Amino acid sequence: MVATPAIVNVFSALADETRLDIVTRLAEGDATLSELAEHYDMSIQAVSKHLSVLEDAGVVSRRREAQRRPVRLEAEVFDLMTKWIERYRQNAEARYQRLDQLLAQLDGTDP
Amino acid sequence: MVATPAIVNVFSALADETRLDIVTRLAEGDATLSELAEHYDMSIQAVSKHLSVLEDAGVVSRRREAQRRPVRLEAEVFDLMTKWIERYRQNAEARYQRLDQLLAQLDGTDP
Repeated sequence: MVATPAIVNVFSALADETRLDIVTRLAEGDATLSELAEHYDMSIQAVSKHLSVLEDAGVVSRRREAQRRPVRLEAEVFDLMTKWIERYRQNAEARYQRLDQLLAQLDGTDP
Repeated sequence: MVATPAIVNVFSALADETRLDIVTRLAEGDATLSELAEHYDMSIQAVSKHLSVLEDAGVVSRRREAQRRPVRLEAEVFDLMTKWIERYRQNAEARYQRLDQLLAQLDGTDP
């Protein structure tokens, strides 16, 4: 279990086309470094570095098995992002509702 | 109306503590550049640059009014992020359900 990562680190880890593509592939199923590296025109070391950034941010984890070390998405990080977004959405909606009420009062249409 | 921004640009714009703090403040209400700049130990030009990054990514917009030019959060960008996250969450949940079924079958507890 990874400690809850800071949301800024999560955004930073996802602010890269290759890392977003890795996340897309892992959403379809766990994969090893070499399996992932097949899809990119870069060295296995470069892909490994991208994985480390995702791992440090808590977006993925690597578990050790007998012969392979598959990488998996960490569902908790998506929960964290959803909570972060919902907080702003709720604030924004509350503000728009107050504005609507104010406009309705100005129009004299408020009962 | 800002065109739908690429999700990677949104994550990139949010991958900074100051810009996240600006988003937090704007969730409470629209604010001008000078109102926002009061809260940061940096030049107004530096804050303006952060706002430009958020604006280019479609996270905020600036509308022109008579005397002031308030910055506001763009709700659409949070919808975009939510959709992006939900896609991965649904994939992940579907996979875990298939795994649970498989484990249940292996245990012989599946009816």
